[in-house]
Amino acid sequence: MNKAIHLGEEIYALVSRLYPICRSITGNGVRESFAILSEHIPLQVREVATGTKVFDWTVPREWNIKDAWIKNERGEKIVDFKKCNLHVLSYSVPVHAKLSLGELKQHIFALPEHPDRIPYRTSYYKENWAFCMTHRQLTQLRDGQYEVCIDSSLEEGHLTYGELFVQGKTADEVLISCHTCHPSLVNDNLSGVALATFLARSILSGEPRYSYRFLFIPGTIGSITWLALNESKVRNIEHGLVLAGVGDAGKFHYKKSRRGDAEIDRAAVHVLKSFGDFGVEEFSPYGYDERQFCSPGFDLAVGCLTRTPHGQYSEYHTSADDLNFVRPEYLGESFERCIAIVNLLESNRVYKNLNPKCEPQLGRRGLYQMIGGHEGGKRKELALLWVLNQSDGEHSLLDIAERSGLPFELINEAADALMEHELLELCESNGGNT
Amino acid sequence: MNKAIHLGEEIYALVSRLYPICRSITGNGVRESFAILSEHIPLQVREVATGTKVFDWTVPREWNIKDAWIKNERGEKIVDFKKCNLHVLSYSVPVHAKLSLGELKQHIFALPEHPDRIPYRTSYYKENWAFCMTHRQLTQLRDGQYEVCIDSSLEEGHLTYGELFVQGKTADEVLISCHTCHPSLVNDNLSGVALATFLARSILSGEPRYSYRFLFIPGTIGSITWLALNESKVRNIEHGLVLAGVGDAGKFHYKKSRRGDAEIDRAAVHVLKSFGDFGVEEFSPYGYDERQFCSPGFDLAVGCLTRTPHGQYSEYHTSADDLNFVRPEYLGESFERCIAIVNLLESNRVYKNLNPKCEPQLGRRGLYQMIGGHEGGKRKELALLWVLNQSDGEHSLLDIAERSGLPFELINEAADALMEHELLELCESNGGNT
Amino acid sequence: MNKAIHLGEEIYALVSRLYPICRSITGNGVRESFAILSEHIPLQVREVATGTKVFDWTVPREWNIKDAWIKNERGEKIVDFKKCNLHVLSYSVPVHAKLSLGELKQHIFALPEHPDRIPYRTSYYKENWAFCMTHRQLTQLRDGQYEVCIDSSLEEGHLTYGELFVQGKTADEVLISCHTCHPSLVNDNLSGVALATFLARSILSGEPRYSYRFLFIPGTIGSITWLALNESKVRNIEHGLVLAGVGDAGKFHYKKSRRGDAEIDRAAVHVLKSFGDFGVEEFSPYGYDERQFCSPGFDLAVGCLTRTPHGQYSEYHTSADDLNFVRPEYLGESFERCIAIVNLLESNRVYKNLNPKCEPQLGRRGLYQMIGGHEGGKRKELALLWVLNQSDGEHSLLDIAERSGLPFELINEAADALMEHELLELCESNGGNT
Repeated sequence: MNKAIHLGEEIYALVSRLYPICRSITGNGVRESFAILSEHIPLQVREVATGTKVFDWTVPREWNIKDAWIKNERGEKIVDFKKCNLHVLSYSVPVHAKLSLGELKQHIFALPEHPDRIPYRTSYYKENWAFCMTHRQLTQLRDGQYEVCIDSSLEEGHLTYGELFVQGKTADEVLISCHTCHPSLVNDNLSGVALATFLARSILSGEPRYSYRFLFIPGTIGSITWLALNESKVRNIEHGLVLAGVGDAGKFHYKKSRRGDAEIDRAAVHVLKSFGDFGVEEFSPYGYDERQFCSPGFDLAVGCLTRTPHGQYSEYHTSADDLNFVRPEYLGESFERCIAIVNLLESNRVYKNLNPKCEPQLGRRGLYQMIGGHEGGKRKELALLWVLNQSDGEHSLLDIAERSGLPFELINEAADALMEHELLELCESNGGNT
Repeated sequence: MNKAIHLGEEIYALVSRLYPICRSITGNGVRESFAILSEHIPLQVREVATGTKVFDWTVPREWNIKDAWIKNERGEKIVDFKKCNLHVLSYSVPVHAKLSLGELKQHIFALPEHPDRIPYRTSYYKENWAFCMTHRQLTQLRDGQYEVCIDSSLEEGHLTYGELFVQGKTADEVLISCHTCHPSLVNDNLSGVALATFLARSILSGEPRYSYRFLFIPGTIGSITWLALNESKVRNIEHGLVLAGVGDAGKFHYKKSRRGDAEIDRAAVHVLKSFGDFGVEEFSPYGYDERQFCSPGFDLAVGCLTRTPHGQYSEYHTSADDLNFVRPEYLGESFERCIAIVNLLESNRVYKNLNPKCEPQLGRRGLYQMIGGHEGGKRKELALLWVLNQSDGEHSLLDIAERSGLPFELINEAADALMEHELLELCESNGGNT
Repeated sequence: MNKAIHLGEEIYALVSRLYPICRSITGNGVRESFAILSEHIPLQVREVATGTKVFDWTVPREWNIKDAWIKNERGEKIVDFKKCNLHVLSYSVPVHAKLSLGELKQHIFALPEHPDRIPYRTSYYKENWAFCMTHRQLTQLRDGQYEVCIDSSLEEGHLTYGELFVQGKTADEVLISCHTCHPSLVNDNLSGVALATFLARSILSGEPRYSYRFLFIPGTIGSITWLALNESKVRNIEHGLVLAGVGDAGKFHYKKSRRGDAEIDRAAVHVLKSFGDFGVEEFSPYGYDERQFCSPGFDLAVGCLTRTPHGQYSEYHTSADDLNFVRPEYLGESFERCIAIVNLLESNRVYKNLNPKCEPQLGRRGLYQMIGGHEGGKRKELALLWVLNQSDGEHSLLDIAERSGLPFELINEAADALMEHELLELCESNGGNT
C-alpha cells in the first residue's frame, strides 16, 4: 500500500510537469509532452504527415500557437492565453482584428451554469476562431471596441503520436491506450497518460507472457490513424484497455468492450470487485477511443477504465479539471487496479487435472489437513479442490474464480501448488494467438 | 393524437353498429356483420359446408335463431331474446314447452356473484337448450307453470368467415386475426373486429413490404378451419397478432407466441414499452386463437394483443361488456399501438456498415456537431453511432434499438440518414421468406 | 401422510438400533451395521483388501477397537469409550501409558464453544492417538498422573461396503449413495443410511423403469474405491443422489451436481418446491461423496439431498448429533421427497402429440367441459393443453411442468389420459442410455 501511495505521488509529479503545456491533436505541445515521457520510458515518437488518408479520414494540418489575447479599449489584456491555454478554441485560425462587443460575442464560449470556469472547446475540422472565458467575466464586458489576437498557425505538418512495444513471451498483445490531445486538463487525460507511462515502466521491468503495446495518441484521429497504418498488427491484440479519468476521487468504473464478455471484461470486473465498490457500464459507441477499437470492422476486446466516467463530473472539460481535482492517492489506487488486471491476464491459464478420477490424496502431499471430522472448508483447501474439479481443459483460472466466488489470486496460488506437485498440466493451446 | 382520437371514434361507431346483431360460430348474424365490414374493406366472405373435416374437428351445423322467450302464468314475457340476445344459450336447439319452475331452473344460467348481469354461455358441440338471466330475476321467480320458446334452427349449412389479403412487396405475411363469434359483447370481441377492420383499411392505403392477411373467424373452429383449408399458405406467415379485448380502460398486455422470442414478440414489447406502462404474459395454450396458430404442428410466431387480458375483468362474458365498458379513446390508443407494431415490422431490416473500420467522419457529412469538447451525446448522434457500430450484417434495427435503449423510430431514422449518405447497405438476405 | 409418519418411525427405529455401534471407514462396526441392514434388504457386502490401489489412494489398514479409557490417580475411569465411542479419535493407534496432565493434553480434543459436547475427530492417514471429551471436563482436570489405554488394532484387513443393485427395465441407473463411516452420530449419517435402506425396500417392491444402485460406503475412500473397482459400470449412471443429514428439523436443501442443470438437479428442485420452502445450493467440490462422483474424470449427474446442509448446524460432528436431534417425522418427510423424486425420474418421458395441427377436440372425448363461455382454465384441462402443445418430441414432462408452472404429477396424469385416447405417443429414443 505504501508502494501504491509512493507511486501515486510519482505519477502526480509527472502530471504536474505536463499540465502547463498546450497540447492539441497535433503540434509542438504534443512533442514537448512526449519528450518528458521519454525520460521515463523508451517511447517511439511517430510523425504522420498532413494529408495522409486514414480510412474515411485525412490527417489534418498541424496547429501551433504562440500567443492569444483580447484587449479592451484601454489596451488592457482581459483574456490572456499565457495565463490559461483553455482560453483559445483549439485549432483557432490566426486572427488580429478590432471588434465591437456584439461581434466579439460571436466568438466567445462560456458556461452560464458554472460562471467561474473556463470551458474547453475545439474546432478541428471546421475553420473557426474563438475565445473561451468565464461566464462571470463575459457578463462584465462593457460595450466598446475590443482588439483580439490569435497568433496561431495551421499548416502542412504532422500528427505526432507515441508508441511503446514491450516484447513478451508470446506475440499476443495487450493494448493500453490513452489520449494526449488535451491542453491543461488533468483528469481528462493527463491522469491516463501518466498512469500508462508508469504502467509501461512496471511492465518493462518484468518478463511478461503477453506483449504490450502502449499508445499515446490524440483522441479519435489518433486511434484511427494508428489502426489505418497498422492493420496487420491488429490481429495480435487479444486484450486492451483505454485509460482515462483515473485521478479523481470517484469510484472506479469499467466500460465493457463491444463483445461484452471478453476476457478483459471479465478480468477488469473481477479485479474491481475484489477491491470493493465499483460500477460497470455496458458498451456504447460513445466515449473514448474504444469507439474506434470496437468499430465492427475490428471489434477488438478493448474496454475502458475510468474512475468517474466520461462526462459525468461537472469539472469535465473545464478549467476546474485542474491539479486540485486529481490527487496522488487516487492515481496510486488506479495503478494498483491496472497492475492487478495485468497480473490476472498474465496468469489466466487453462489447466488439466492429471488425476481427474476422484480427488488426489492431498493430505499425503502436505496440501490438506490430516485431522478430519471438524468443518475444514479453509479457503486455501477449497481453492485446491476447485482448481482440481474444474481443470478439465475447458475452464480458465478466471472461470474457476468466478464459479467458486474465491479471489483470482487464491485460485492462481492453488494452481501453482498443484503444478508443483504434478497434479496439473498447462493446456498447450492456451495463451497462444489462436 | 387528434388523428388517433378521431379514429377511435370511427372504430367505436363501427362497434356500435355491430353490437345488436346476434352472432355465433355460424349463422346469419355473422353474414350480416360481414356485410357491414364490407362497407369499409373489400372483405372476402367464405362459406365452408357443414360436415367438412378440419383436422380432428368437423364443421358443425349452422345455427340460426328468430326469437326466444319465457312467459309466466299470466302470459307475460319475463325473458325476451329480442331485448338481449345473451338470454339464449348459443346453439340452443328449438324448444316450445310448459315447465314447472323446478324443471325450468335446469335450463337457466345466472351469476350469483354479479346479480345484475346476464351471463354468456354456449353449447356448440352438445345438444342442449337454456336461458341466461340475471341472478336477481332468477331469485324472484315464483313457483308455477312457465312457457318457454326457442325458435331456433340447427341445420346443414355453412360456417362463414371473412378474409382480406393485402399483397405486399414480398410474399412474407403478417397475419391479423380476430374472432367474430360473440353476440352482443363489445370488448370481447367487437373491439378486435372493428380494430382489425380499420387496421386493414390503413394498410390498404400504403405500399407495405409485407403482405397482410386479415382473418375474421369464429373462435377455435374458425382458426382450425382456416388452417386446415389453407395449409399451403401457412409457411408464408412470418409474424402474427390476435386482436381481442382492445377497447377497455385497462393497460395493454402482450401475450407472447409459443416461441417466446420471435420478432413479433420483441416488436410488440418494444412498442408497448415506448408508450408507457404495460404487461407481458408468457405463452400459454389457453386463451384465443393463438392456441391453434401456436399448436406444435404449426408453431407460428403469433402473439395476442389485448388491454386487460382474457378473463381478467369481471365484465368478461357478461352483459356488462357493453357499449359503456368500451370507449373510443381506448380503441384509438389500441390502433396507435398496432400501427406502431406494423411500422416496426415493416422497417426492421439488417444493414451492413460500408465503412466498418473506425467511425466514418460524420462531421463533414453534416451529420455531427462540429464544435467539440462539450458533452454531446445527443440522442440523434448516438443513434447514428449505434447503427454504424452494430450494423455488421448480424443485427437488425430492433436488435440495435434494444441494445442501445433508444426508441426504434430514432434508430430507423438514423439508418435512413446513413443510407442516404451511402454509409450503409441493406443486407439482401433480409426480409425474404427464408 | 399417515404412511409417511409410520415409515418415519420405522426408519427411526433402524437408526436407533445402529446408533450404539462404533463404525469407522473400516472394521467390524461396519460389518455389524450391515448385518442389521441385511434384515431389511438383500445387501451385498463387499470386502476390499488393505493395500488395494484405488486411483491415487490405497485402501488403508483395518481398524478395530475393544476398549479405551483414561484413569486418574485414584484409578477412576474419567473417560470411558464404552460410554460413548466418540471419546476416541477414530483410527487411534493402540497406547497404554502414564502421562502428566500436560502430556495428556497434547492428545485431547474438546470444543470450548460447546463445553458440554464431545467432538468427533479422525486421523485415518496419519498415525496418531487421542481422546475427545467435553470442554467442561477438560477444564476440571487437575495436575497429576493419568493412565491412558486404547485397546485398538490397525492391521492388514479389509474395507467393507454394502451394495444393492435393483434391475429395472432399462440398464440406465439411478445411484443412491450414503456414508456409513461415522460412529454414534445420528443425523450425519445414520439418517441417510436408514433412509436409503427404506428407499431400497420400496423400490424392490415395484417394477421400476430405471435400474437402481444403492451404495453404503465409507466417505471419500469408499466412493473412490467403488469408482476405481467399477469403472465400467459408471457410464450407466444417469442420475444420482447422495443422502446425508436427512433427519433434523431444518428445511430441505438440494445441492446441485457439477453439471448444474442435469435432470436430477431439475427433478429435485421441482419436487422440493412442490412441497414448500426449501433451499438450493450450487455445486462446490466440498461436502459428501458427490465430490468424487462429480470429479472431472466422471462428472456424473449426482446431487446431494440434505435437510440442514453439511456443517451448518452446531450439533454437526459432536455428541449432540444424537437420537434427540433427529425425529421420526423428519425422516418420514425425507422419505416422501425421495420417493417423489424417484417417481418423477421414472415418469419423465418425452412424448409426441399425434394430432399436432391445432388442438384435438377434447370435448367429444370427455376430456373437456362442454358448456363454453365461462372462464374454464381448470388446472386439469390446462395440463392437457400444455402436454399437447409442448409434446413435439423435444420437451419432457418435466420441461412442460416447469414451463407451465403446474405440478409434475398433474402433467403426468394428463399425459396418461392423452395416451389412453391415443393422442400421444412415447418417443422411443427417450429413456435409453443414449
